[in-house]
Order: sequence, then structure tokens, then C-alpha cells
Amino acid sequence: MARTQGSHSGITGPKVREAAIRLFAENGYAAVSMRKIATEVGVQAGALYNYTPDKQTLLFDLLKGHMEELLGARAETPAPDDPARALEQFTRFHIRFHHERPEAVFISYMELRNLTPENFEVIEGLRRQYEDQLEDILRRGVASGAFDVTEPKIATMAVIAMLTGVNTWFREGGRLSLPEVEEIYWQMVRKAVMASVGSNQG
Amino acid sequence: MARTQGSHSGITGPKVREAAIRLFAENGYAAVSMRKIATEVGVQAGALYNYTPDKQTLLFDLLKGHMEELLGARAETPAPDDPARALEQFTRFHIRFHHERPEAVFISYMELRNLTPENFEVIEGLRRQYEDQLEDILRRGVASGAFDVTEPKIATMAVIAMLTGVNTWFREGGRLSLPEVEEIYWQMVRKAVMASVGSNQG
Repeated sequence: MARTQGSHSGITGPKVREAAIRLFAENGYAAVSMRKIATEVGVQAGALYNYTPDKQTLLFDLLKGHMEELLGARAETPAPDDPARALEQFTRFHIRFHHERPEAVFISYMELRNLTPENFEVIEGLRRQYEDQLEDILRRGVASGAFDVTEPKIATMAVIAMLTGVNTWFREGGRLSLPEVEEIYWQMVRKAVMASVGSNQG
Repeated sequence: MARTQGSHSGITGPKVREAAIRLFAENGYAAVSMRKIATEVGVQAGALYNYTPDKQTLLFDLLKGHMEELLGARAETPAPDDPARALEQFTRFHIRFHHERPEAVFISYMELRNLTPENFEVIEGLRRQYEDQLEDILRRGVASGAFDVTEPKIATMAVIAMLTGVNTWFREGGRLSLPEVEEIYWQMVRKAVMASVGSNQG
């Protein structure tokens, strides 16, 4: 309690985020107190307020951090010019990125309901940036004649929901490896959007 | 408190379910007390125990009721023999059924984490019955040569995730009607699973 503000921030920050993500995913935002998070991290409740002013800000920072990480990872791997290659890259990227952080993905969908309207707008804006990348790929494919998609915005939502769904059933060590699962989903996505004539690569 | 067990069960039961679904969806199971549910229904906390022995049983009954309603609705509309027609029927049914009860769908996915292992097994069994219906359609389509699906189980999970995702973005009164959305999703599902030669109906 006597610590100066920001002390150990480099150590405590990631620990707070990890603990909050885990507790929110397990119990839900509304059921988790700042005191509970502090106990999990191993600090006094007061120390937590050196890191974040309140629980709403903590949730917001977690969801914002998740989306920024997603957009940052995308920015590191520019989409290929060819729409089909770009779509394959997006498909595999989405499955892998979300598979690696199931709890953050879970609360990013579930706890939107607990954001203030202003915070919700920010997260929605970031999410839209990500969706726009897929929509752009689909529109480019339509323009080139490679894809047959009447509603790119809806196809975007459909593909993202389908790919994120991998997290609900895939477990490491099962019959199929993650790259095999990626390949199966990619073939479904490809077929779902491709123009019908002479495009079968399966 | 002096009421005999089961009194008003016909009136209170549906009210308890409605209130519990709404509160669980808004706040999460862990954050909602039996007292809170009783207040929402307009009865004393003690009266709630005439209806359900505890909160876990209440959650279990809600999720079980949801799955039984789903399976019951399916049983009323037998799948056509033709696999493509059966798949179209399943697609439209799934979107409509889930669109009509977004809160029950939300907690059916989100609150699985809060079921006891025994209760989870029961819900998973019911869910598997539903998934098996789609998997069966896909396998029949593969057998008839209409579909090209290498992994029917995974295609089942992919299609269900895609269709359930409609709930995350579709709102009545927007640019597209629900039947129009159904049609767009059906075309994507159809293309994703169809055999490639001469099957284009789009």
C-alpha cells in the first residue's frame, strides 16, 4: 500500500491482465471483484488501482488490447494481391490467432454486454477494421471474377463466425492437427465464395 | 413461504424461466443470486425453492429445456429424403429457431462452463443429437454424390457456428429480411459442401 504509483508496473501489468482474463472467462465480469483479481495476482486490492482506475477500464483495456494485438499481427503479414491467396492467408491466420488465446476470445465476445456504450463503440470500431480486411478481400475477388459473393459484408460475418467456432471443439492432441483443421476450413471457405466455373482446386 | 410445494407452479414456472434467462444473459450466471431472480419474478426468495431446489438445477433446466425445444421442433419437421433439400431445411430452421430466442442461445453457449460435469454431459448429449442430424444429412449427400465433404463432423461444426453467428449481427428492420438472410446463408452452405461438377444452382 505504501508503494509509489506505478511501481512494479512492468511486472504487475501482464499479471493483472492474465488473472483478469482467466477470472472473467471462468466466472463472468459481473461476478469478479477487483479484490478477487488482486488476490489472484498476489497483491493488495489497493495496489491494483495503481494499474487500473476501475474494473470497467480493466475490461475495456483487455478487449482493446486483444483487438490491437489482432490488428497488429495482421499488419505484420500483408495480404497477397491474389484474392484467393489472401483469403487462404486470412483463414489460416484467423484460426491460429484465435486458437492461441481462447479465454481472451471468449471474453471478447461475451463481455461486450458489460462495456459502457462509449467503450463498446471503440471495440466495435476495432472489430470493424478487422472485418473490413476480410470484406476487402472478398470484394477484390468479386471484382477479379474469382469469387461469387452477392453480399460481401454478410459473407464476412459468416466466415468469421465459422472460423472462430473452431475454438468450441478443437483440442490439441486429437485425431486432426491444427494445420489439418485449417486446410479443411480453408476448402469450405474457398468453395463457399468461389465462382463456380473451373475454380475447383479441391 | 407458507405455500404448499408446487403451488402456482403453472404460473410461476414460465416466469421464473424468463427472468432467469434474462438475468443470466445480462449479468452471467455467477453474478445472479436466487434472491435477485425472486425479486425479478416478484416473489419471495423462499417461494423460488418451490420451483427449483437450487441455482445449478435452474441453469441446467434452462439449458436442457432449450435443447429439448430445439430437438422437439426438429422432430415436427422431418428431413426430406433429398440431401440438398434436407440441408436447406436445416439451414433455414437453424437460423429461424436461434433468431427467435437470442438470450437462451447466448446462455446455452456461455454458461456451459458453469454446469456441473454430470449436467454438462447431459447437455452435450442433447447437443450431439442435434449435430448428428446435420452430420447425417451431410453423410447422405456424400453417399449420393451430391456433396463433397471429407470430414462431415467438422463440416457440421463449421456450418452450425456459421449459422448461429447470424444472432451476433442480424437485427429486424435492417436492409435485409430474415428470409433474405436465410437465402444468402443457404447459398454459402450449399456451395461449401456441394460436389463441384454440374451442381451450381446459384
